[in-house]
Amino acid sequence: MHTPLHSLVRTLALSLRPRSLACASLAGPPSLKLLSQSEAIAVDQELMATPGFSVDQLMELAGLSCATAVFKSYPPTTHRRALCVCGPGNNGGDGLVAARHMAQFGYVTTVVYPKRPAQPLFVNLVEQMRMCRIPVLTSLPPQPELDSNYDVLVDAIFGFSFAGEVRAPFDEALAGLAASSLPLCSIDIPSGWDVELGPSGSAPALQPQMLVSLTMPKRCTMHFRGCHFLGGRFVPPSIAEKFGFEQPAMPGAEQVVLLHDAQPE
Amino acid sequence: MHTPLHSLVRTLALSLRPRSLACASLAGPPSLKLLSQSEAIAVDQELMATPGFSVDQLMELAGLSCATAVFKSYPPTTHRRALCVCGPGNNGGDGLVAARHMAQFGYVTTVVYPKRPAQPLFVNLVEQMRMCRIPVLTSLPPQPELDSNYDVLVDAIFGFSFAGEVRAPFDEALAGLAASSLPLCSIDIPSGWDVELGPSGSAPALQPQMLVSLTMPKRCTMHFRGCHFLGGRFVPPSIAEKFGFEQPAMPGAEQVVLLHDAQPE
Repeated sequence: MHTPLHSLVRTLALSLRPRSLACASLAGPPSLKLLSQSEAIAVDQELMATPGFSVDQLMELAGLSCATAVFKSYPPTTHRRALCVCGPGNNGGDGLVAARHMAQFGYVTTVVYPKRPAQPLFVNLVEQMRMCRIPVLTSLPPQPELDSNYDVLVDAIFGFSFAGEVRAPFDEALAGLAASSLPLCSIDIPSGWDVELGPSGSAPALQPQMLVSLTMPKRCTMHFRGCHFLGGRFVPPSIAEKFGFEQPAMPGAEQVVLLHDAQPE
Repeated sequence: MHTPLHSLVRTLALSLRPRSLACASLAGPPSLKLLSQSEAIAVDQELMATPGFSVDQLMELAGLSCATAVFKSYPPTTHRRALCVCGPGNNGGDGLVAARHMAQFGYVTTVVYPKRPAQPLFVNLVEQMRMCRIPVLTSLPPQPELDSNYDVLVDAIFGFSFAGEVRAPFDEALAGLAASSLPLCSIDIPSGWDVELGPSGSAPALQPQMLVSLTMPKRCTMHFRGCHFLGGRFVPPSIAEKFGFEQPAMPGAEQVVLLHDAQPE
């Protein structure tokens, strides 16, 4: 079964690594609006107008939905040692929140956080790592330690505001993630991908096994063929209508919905 | 089957109203520390030290866990019209967050919010009601409108910091909730109960069908015999150890655990 999302011409031959059995059903709606970068930014600004939602609230729910999706695909019973690689912005913040929830879910969690912003939000998030006894590394462990010491990787380096070239130290982190044989779960977009065009820049092109789009998938996800979840169950109907999309229904009280399973080669 | 929580002498004959079939199993640990009021306040202060957790983060998770527990006991398929009655402090804030998530879960949600604090957190929460098209009333609807227009009530008036007598306008709200025949779900403690002694004051003694304790149950819950959930999956091990408790395990990636089912008369 192919959703229209996947019937679009692919520009790349993507290699799929072994995937979890948890991604074994299709639940995607027949059609789904994909957000452009400017739309994603505008939705975010609308959510966080004053008054509106605080970034703390949205990040907490976004990170929780990512942790939940990882749990569904790579549970700690089979993938106990998790490494979350976090970038300098809000995508990295989502990753720090996800790491905290994953520790609550039973993972032995470690974080890589090369750049630490000075804003209270990020200082708080790092302190929470300490309170939860989650080690925070400053760079991605080199091979072969990476693949032997962890079972699943979370890519929270760049999100929908990413543009341009990947700079140090994140170029090395991306290269390390791309070279790993571990299952990789990306938050919002695979880091380094152009938000609209996909893996088109000079950065090492990540090919994650799993992606958690937040709010709505971005245009680049038409080039993604792994296991695809949608998270971020916080979009008010007024904003969805204003931007002309409808978030797919999430089951029950859950924070994520499986949009589509990984596609075979 | 009785947990030690329930083998303690009860000081009141409690009348149980019909309960949901969802509360049909026992999952409580054999023993559970019950927090005193001063311990609950101290745990909260420890969580929100600077740096630490922001109140926005904790409230978001607390409210989500309450909404999830209501969903498990009184799902919108059978209890579609929900009314959340919110007090002036953080317990009311939890209720506003719960109302928002319940709207996401498919409830037709209405909020009663008699007092609106001026802090940005609460101004934001009220604006979120507007964004989510959740009506905000200033007082509890009188009978018989209350019982005919709603299917389930959420009591988010007072939490663990409550002390003394109930003042207007919340005395009337409590009396209205106590007189209703609708199922009632309380957040953290049944409002008006003494945090340690239970329904001992001059306030109308609520007898909710369901309670969602946050972080850990408070001492007054030894007098509660309804369906009891624990929520608030954010306690770092360092804080749990410092205060000498262990949060019961929550299943999988869930935000609540059922501690015990309602006890028959």
